[in-house]
This record gives sequence, C-alpha cells and structure tokens, in this order.
Amino acid sequence: MSSLIADRARRTTTPQRLAGWVDRFAALDERPGEPGVTRRGYTRLEREAHRIFADEMVALGLAVRVDEAGNTIAELRGSRPELGAVGTGSHLDSVPNGGRFDGVAGVVAALEAARSIVEAGGTNERTLRFVAFAGEEGARFGQACTGSRAVAGLLETGALSALVDADGITLGEAMTAVGLAPEGIHQAGWDAADWDTFIELHIEQGSVLAEAGMPIGIVDVISGSTRFTIDVVGRASHTGGTPMRLRADALTTASAIILAAEELANDARHHGTRITVGRIDVAPGSITTIAGRCTLHVDVRDTDSTRQRESAAELVELARHIAASRGTSIEVTLLADASPAILPVSTRNHLVATAADLGLPYRVMPSGASHDTQMVNHVCKGGMIFVPSLNGGVSHSPDEDTAFDDLAIGVDLLTAALTALAVPKRPEDIA
Amino acid sequence: MSSLIADRARRTTTPQRLAGWVDRFAALDERPGEPGVTRRGYTRLEREAHRIFADEMVALGLAVRVDEAGNTIAELRGSRPELGAVGTGSHLDSVPNGGRFDGVAGVVAALEAARSIVEAGGTNERTLRFVAFAGEEGARFGQACTGSRAVAGLLETGALSALVDADGITLGEAMTAVGLAPEGIHQAGWDAADWDTFIELHIEQGSVLAEAGMPIGIVDVISGSTRFTIDVVGRASHTGGTPMRLRADALTTASAIILAAEELANDARHHGTRITVGRIDVAPGSITTIAGRCTLHVDVRDTDSTRQRESAAELVELARHIAASRGTSIEVTLLADASPAILPVSTRNHLVATAADLGLPYRVMPSGASHDTQMVNHVCKGGMIFVPSLNGGVSHSPDEDTAFDDLAIGVDLLTAALTALAVPKRPEDIA
Repeated sequence: MSSLIADRARRTTTPQRLAGWVDRFAALDERPGEPGVTRRGYTRLEREAHRIFADEMVALGLAVRVDEAGNTIAELRGSRPELGAVGTGSHLDSVPNGGRFDGVAGVVAALEAARSIVEAGGTNERTLRFVAFAGEEGARFGQACTGSRAVAGLLETGALSALVDADGITLGEAMTAVGLAPEGIHQAGWDAADWDTFIELHIEQGSVLAEAGMPIGIVDVISGSTRFTIDVVGRASHTGGTPMRLRADALTTASAIILAAEELANDARHHGTRITVGRIDVAPGSITTIAGRCTLHVDVRDTDSTRQRESAAELVELARHIAASRGTSIEVTLLADASPAILPVSTRNHLVATAADLGLPYRVMPSGASHDTQMVNHVCKGGMIFVPSLNGGVSHSPDEDTAFDDLAIGVDLLTAALTALAVPKRPEDIA
Repeated sequence: MSSLIADRARRTTTPQRLAGWVDRFAALDERPGEPGVTRRGYTRLEREAHRIFADEMVALGLAVRVDEAGNTIAELRGSRPELGAVGTGSHLDSVPNGGRFDGVAGVVAALEAARSIVEAGGTNERTLRFVAFAGEEGARFGQACTGSRAVAGLLETGALSALVDADGITLGEAMTAVGLAPEGIHQAGWDAADWDTFIELHIEQGSVLAEAGMPIGIVDVISGSTRFTIDVVGRASHTGGTPMRLRADALTTASAIILAAEELANDARHHGTRITVGRIDVAPGSITTIAGRCTLHVDVRDTDSTRQRESAAELVELARHIAASRGTSIEVTLLADASPAILPVSTRNHLVATAADLGLPYRVMPSGASHDTQMVNHVCKGGMIFVPSLNGGVSHSPDEDTAFDDLAIGVDLLTAALTALAVPKRPEDIA
C-alpha cells in the first residue's frame, strides 16, 4: 500500500474543527444545571442532534434519510454500488450525566471524514455511507444498541412494548413521541448484499492507550453483555418497632447480593468478567421503613460468551441462596443479552496496514464496552478504531475526556481507511 | 379508685364507629393507585385530615385552633384551668405507602374520647385538650415529630430551611405552601404551667401484645433515634470499559456499609439496638454506569441513650474504614437526634390502676418507635397506651392492621384515664 492513499484522503480536519463539533452536540443537554451531558435515546434532543448531522451531510451534497428506528444515514453513491458499501458512524445519545465524547466522537469523525472525502473530489467506486445511530446507550430502556440492532434485523418487535423506561414509557411510545414510525421497524434492516465494511471510531473508555502512550487502538473483539433485574422481595416494616431478628429486609439482602456479584467477578475463574449493579430502586424508600422491595439492575460483561452467560446464571443462583437465608426471595427478569462480537480479521488487517502506512503506532485490543459495530457486524465486516481516553479512562461520567489532537489522529486513520476501501486504486498507487 | 370512674366515662365508642373514622382518613391518599396510604406531613391531604378532625371537634362544642406548626388543638375548658390541662392525641400524617392506623388510631381515639366525655355531660375541673399533631413521621424531612417538637419548644428555627424533602422543598416552604406561617413557629410552644398530663394512644407497631394475647400495653420508655446520611463518594465510570480492579464503586462500598450496620446491631453488645438503612439514592443510577455517589439514610434506635449515640458513632467509624479500603470516601450529615424518653412513673401508675379498675390485662413495655409524646413529655407528664398490632406487628406498611375490637378497648381505657384526671372526684367515688 502506498503512502499516496493517505495523501489522496486530503485530510483536512483539525483539533479546532473537532472541538467545535463536540461543543455543539454537548450543548444539547436535558439537564443543563447538572454535571456532564444528558441526552437520552429517543428524546427530542437526540433528534435535534441527528438533524444537525443531517443538515451538515446535506450541505456536503449527500443524500440523507432517517429510517424507522431513527438512524440517520447519509449516502455518497459510488460508481460501482454492486461492490457493497463502506460505512462509518456512531451514536448521538448519552447516558444520564454522561460525557461529551462517547458516541459523539465517532459521529464527528464521520462528519469530518465525509467532508475530507467530498473535498478531495475523486470518484468513489463503492458507495460510502455515514451513519448516526439512535438509542445506542442501554441506560434508558436497559437494552443497548437499539438503532443498530434494528439495521441488523435483531430488534424483536416485542421489545417495542416490553422495554420500559424509569417513567413507564415503552420504547415504542418513546419512538412515536419523537415522530418515528416504529410499527415499520423491520423495514430498517440492512441488506447484507448492499454492504461490504463498516468502521466505527470511538473513544476507548478505558486507560490502556493513554497508559501505553499509544494514539490508536484497533479492536479485535467487543465484549458481550447480559443484563437483568433482580427483584428482592422482603417485608416493609417500621424501623423502630421491628427487632433485628424479626426483619425481612430487602436492602440488606440486596447489599449481600451486590457484594457477592463483586466477589464473583473478582475470583480466579473470572479474569476479565465485569459485573456491575449501577442502579437500585428501593420501595418504599423511607428512612423509617425497612425496605420491602429492592430492584437491582445488573450488567454482566465478558469477551467470552460462555463465561458471560455462566457468570450471570451463577450470580442468580447465589442471589437465590442469599435471599432464602435472609427470609426474603428474588424474582429475575432478563432485560437484554448480546453476545461478544469477534470482528473479522480482514478489517482489522486493513486498519493495521493503514495505520502503519500513516506511521501511527497502534495496539490491537478488546473493547469492554458495547458498540453499534457489534450489531452491524452481523450484516457486514465490522471494524473499530479507538482513540485514547484521559482521566484514567473514565467514561459515562462528566469527567470523560479525550484530547482533540488524539481525536484528529483517529479521524485521519478513519478517513484513510475508508478512502482506501472506496476509491479505486490508480496504477501509480500500486508501487 | 372506684369502678364508678369507668361508669362515669359513659364509654360509647364501638368498633363500627372506629372503623368508620379510620376508613374516612384512609381515603385521603396521595397515591390512590398504590398499596397502603400515603399522606405525608405538610401536604394538602394532611391539612384536609386536620380539617375533618377540627370540624368534628367544633360539632362537639369544643374551641379549636391551629397553631403555627400546623397542630390542631381542640379545648374543653375546665372549671379550674389553673390545675393544668389533661390532653390526648396523635398524628394524621403517614409514611409513603404506609398503613391505616399509625397515628390515626390515636386521633380517632381522641375524637371518640371527646365525644364520650361531652356526652357524659359532667363538669371537668381540668381543661381537656384533644390534639392532632402535624408532621410526626420523619419520612419526608428526616426529622420526626415536627409538630410536637414545636409545642415542646424543641424545633430549631434553622430546621425550617435546613430540612429538605426528596423534591428539594424545605420544611419552611412546605409549611407555607399549605397556608401555615412558620416564621412564627416559636409561638407554638406550650407553657408547662398550663399543662399536667398528656396520654397518647397508639398501635404497638410490634408483635409483643398480639403474641402474649394482651389487649393493652402501657409504655415506660420510648426509644430515641439518631438519623443521619452517609454520602459515599466513588467514581462514576463505564461498566464495560472499567476493569474490576480500577473501580471506585460507591454502591459496592455502600453495600458493605449496610451489612456492617446490620452486623453491628446484631452483635452481643447491642441487644435491643436497631439500625436500618431504608433509603438509598444512587447517582447517576444507570445500568451502564458504575455508581459515582450513594447516599444512605441511616436510622439508629435504642432505649439506651448512650448506646444509641455510641452505635451511631461506631457505624460512622466503620463506614469510614470500609470506604477507605475501597478507594472511596464518605461524608456524614446529621439529620435528627432524639433522646429516649422515660415516661413519668406517676402517669404509668395511673394507667395501670385504670386498666386494673376496668379489669383489663396489660403489659408495661418499651416503645421501639418514636412518638409525639416523646416531645410533649418535655412540657408535661407523658403517658402512652398501646393497642395490639396484627400481621406480626408490621407497620409503616400496607399490611399494618389492628382489630377494631382491640382499638375500642384501648379507647375505653383512654377515656377512663382522662376522665379520672379531669373530672373532680365526688365524695362517693372515694371508697
């Protein structure tokens, strides 16, 4: 591969341009007085962010459509569309009080890659697509990657009514409320014959790259996640009138389950398994009433699919024993289950070769977080570029940070990799 | 003491009348679709309940006033007011999703005692007062007995702005919003010279009486409570991207503290101490974010004031060590601290003698819960009558229950005890 490929991309992004985009999306915040950014999936503000993306793509001359799941897809048609499209993109929703980069970094990268490619002015053989996915974060409805799940044909229509947010709004209702037509969601599915490769840029959300001083990560496997609730059923009672020995306290039971989950994830058999309870609902939730019911929201992540499911099952079994030993009981409800995704070696090799061509040091690494590419990888060849996260790799937090210089390097790699796949090689390129 | 005292009371209450009153108050419910009764202190519905109480008292010919703290006080002036008043009453607010009897039983008892005494038509030497206290439950603002604290001159004016409910409304704002004038709250204080005795009827909120088959409990000591929050400060981060070893998880720390509190209350030195965490707030509270901050609401109860404060201090020390060992830290805020109240032996002996006179079996016993009498006991001689709780003594719960036959027996004892204190003994009574 010649260094001309990199030249051909005419990379024109700058850290300043990237910062401008990130600021613009960060201003769309449901909770302006609170730390970080809150822009949950299937809200008015998420749609507003998609419109900004769409407007810019239209301004660049691309054809833009919004599908039934709320994904916004911009297309630069190729001279040989039968070869299958090459795409990039990420998501524009956030967790509550999240950071400015998760998802947004990849959409901003898509915006800048599109601009560089359009301004380069050459002909692309393969169709190029730039995508903003909807509802990637599982924070609102428990299920991650809703938009990309739909394009992969993996969103069960039952989920539209079964998934409910903390306010009791179903996924389908939320979609309808922002002007989408979820009853036609199966039409959002992508045709595998129409696609070749999808490469997503994302912040690492970990500290590996920053600690190693590496500007680029190339992902080989994306962790799967199994998510479920454990409802602990005890007996609400007066905190003064009820002796310790007569209690059936749902919150002390829940606490013992949370510590058992932590111990399970930390034991010798579970190198790499992560188990988290990030949300707990207590009823009635009063300082003078012993908890009658607690709902734990559990997230089990692993790059090994067998260990992922076995850990979840083992935790449920432990929780059942703990509850029984404390005069309480549990009820378990599965929220979502996604297998780890092993990304194709061919895409990985293409990214490795492009990075080498640009003289960029890189590390091949797994992803602990879920990503839209996990879903898209069911339709076409998936690949992922990580850029370094600062502040110890903290993410889903107001402290999430990435240097715009590093993000610009990632966008350069993305632009070069897309160009190399989409633009025909000229004889003189093949040195 | 002659059995004529009991006759003189002309006790006319019936289980049916009591059930009618309890039903009427239970219908005032903030959350009609949910289990149990929710009628928090300093809400429109609590005031509505006070109006029902006031209207009935006015109908019986009593003078009624509402004080600056929202307490409703009905008076039947005696022929010798200089002897000091005899009073009874309880509260009309509830915890969220609470029962139908906690507080209401004592107000209904006051209503029926007043009616019996008025219908008996004799002259009372001592002034009689029937009281519905406001805001007894600490559920909303963390501090229990707000109304009775004010009459005892123990409500610090700083509390009006310092105490805040879950919606960020201060105690003072809540009072103003329902038409009270909290700026004059010091005027609500009772003059000790104007009072002699206050006897409150309450459900037991425990299982001692029902298990012993006793219709009456006579309280000797009311537990104190120390209430505080422990804020656990960790680091919010992505549940997928953050390895177990790099976490500072506020919720696993909180869980370890909750279990340490339970262990402390259960150890050999703490026979009788009760420690409860009934509410926990988790931020950001998302299934895909490790908890960055947890607030535990802790309630420590004891009949021994030294052990009460030492247990609270010991738990805070344990929590500090647990947090430090997990890379997190804690911040502690005192919400309320009330000492146990030892009720005067003279009032207890009067209740014992009256019960014996009526042929009622009774048990002298401590109260695990806080009560308005704990505050009133600072101004005059306090006494308490317990009636049995069913369903294992469960309270602060929709399952709270008391048999109306048992409640009628308690009202009989209350009416006789008040009458004996307030109505002059005729020569023939002194046998």
